[in-house]
Amino acid sequence: MNHATFRTAWRFEAFTQACAAAGMARVSVWGDEVDRIGVTAAQQVLQDNGLTVFGYNRAGPFLATTKAERADNLATARREIDKAAALGADHVLVFPGRLSDGQKGLCSARRQVAELLVPLLDHARACGIRLALEPLHPMLAGDRSPLCTMAEAIQLCDQLGDGIGIVVDSYHVWWDPALDAQIALAGEKGRILGFHVNDWLVPTRHLLTDRGMMGDGIIDLAHLHEQVLAAGYQGPVEVEIFSDDWWGRDPALVLQTAIQRCESIFQNVESQHG
Amino acid sequence: MNHATFRTAWRFEAFTQACAAAGMARVSVWGDEVDRIGVTAAQQVLQDNGLTVFGYNRAGPFLATTKAERADNLATARREIDKAAALGADHVLVFPGRLSDGQKGLCSARRQVAELLVPLLDHARACGIRLALEPLHPMLAGDRSPLCTMAEAIQLCDQLGDGIGIVVDSYHVWWDPALDAQIALAGEKGRILGFHVNDWLVPTRHLLTDRGMMGDGIIDLAHLHEQVLAAGYQGPVEVEIFSDDWWGRDPALVLQTAIQRCESIFQNVESQHG
Repeated sequence: MNHATFRTAWRFEAFTQACAAAGMARVSVWGDEVDRIGVTAAQQVLQDNGLTVFGYNRAGPFLATTKAERADNLATARREIDKAAALGADHVLVFPGRLSDGQKGLCSARRQVAELLVPLLDHARACGIRLALEPLHPMLAGDRSPLCTMAEAIQLCDQLGDGIGIVVDSYHVWWDPALDAQIALAGEKGRILGFHVNDWLVPTRHLLTDRGMMGDGIIDLAHLHEQVLAAGYQGPVEVEIFSDDWWGRDPALVLQTAIQRCESIFQNVESQHG
Repeated sequence: MNHATFRTAWRFEAFTQACAAAGMARVSVWGDEVDRIGVTAAQQVLQDNGLTVFGYNRAGPFLATTKAERADNLATARREIDKAAALGADHVLVFPGRLSDGQKGLCSARRQVAELLVPLLDHARACGIRLALEPLHPMLAGDRSPLCTMAEAIQLCDQLGDGIGIVVDSYHVWWDPALDAQIALAGEKGRILGFHVNDWLVPTRHLLTDRGMMGDGIIDLAHLHEQVLAAGYQGPVEVEIFSDDWWGRDPALVLQTAIQRCESIFQNVESQHG
């Protein structure tokens, strides 16, 4: 379960307690909520609840206009990687951020992501933690990530070497006609680090905060899960829903609904794969 | 100039008069506005203004759940093709439409598009008019078109044979990391029928009606135009902006602004290519 699904309806402590009570062993967390109580307290809360950290959000934004800004962003991203390592997270999500003012097109931002990942990855390797690229939906290319497809993410991993992989988020990649082939390829290369689920609503009213609960939209999640499993992924199904609608509801009900939907959509597939 | 840029601020007659007064030779039109006055009157208005029709919107939506619905949709699309041919249009835009209720994923919709295009293309060939596929932005995959990339459109053209091509719309394809290569390939195959321009705003507030005026967003339009010209495209640059903002302004000012922006963004490139 990813904390973003509940946002401030549950703070870090309440979120981890609820996940532990629901029988989960892993949670994905956000740096701002860790900062609110401090890394040491966060470690304690996790330990008290018998939980480990799966994904840590996030290293970035780091796209920059000036050298000074770039150095600042890298320093901040390194500190986030440190915190993730201190919490024993499985991986740190990479979040490139927005284009500079006046910048046109994605070519130079894509180059900058590839360049800045070199020192970040060195730092992550030294900390013993993996980085995770997450291709984001093309509608977010200008303000969140110029990395839009699994194909680009795989190519970037090939360039960068060990210690970096990919999180497949259904919301961001479901539309891609090359998706099945790209998931298989990423699996073959041992690059799939996570699998985020949610759904695409029709109509979608907002580009950032109108994601759907699994089953309420048009993504063929069962098929996608089959592809990820067939590609060798053995990690958890992680629920991450950015939604004004769900953020406004009772968080206990949101958690219960998410678990029920996961059971009904993903159980059959899992039992087929043992 | 595409009539959608002005929507109801200018009806068919006012739109064509304004375009003729601005020195244009071609306009792209919409079937609902033609229906409002009838094909014969529309022909007369175009002739009086010395204009020909470039793109005709549109054949579709035609994705269907039942056989009866499918037959109805095909009949309607054929009538639109007839009207486009009567107006002497260069091409008819293909608009697949939305998924059926309860449908998950895009595989079966993609298959249905390929199947339904066979009889539609036969009809278009018999009418002596070309069909134009327009890959739409992935954020519109569920409710407007499952065809999201140039690569898919090229493959579909290869399958279908002569009489069908592709309209490259900057808004829909600008984010694609494979875009330059795909434009070159489409050009090599003689498939580029049109080039629509507009811009991607940051932030974008609405998935359908918040497109930007050329220059106000982050698309590298000059580069895109170079690619299209280098691929052998010799047709016009067509302005198509779906925008609540621009629809609410004085249409004469919108036209003037669009022309000025096109002159400043595309002129240098055009002069390089003669």
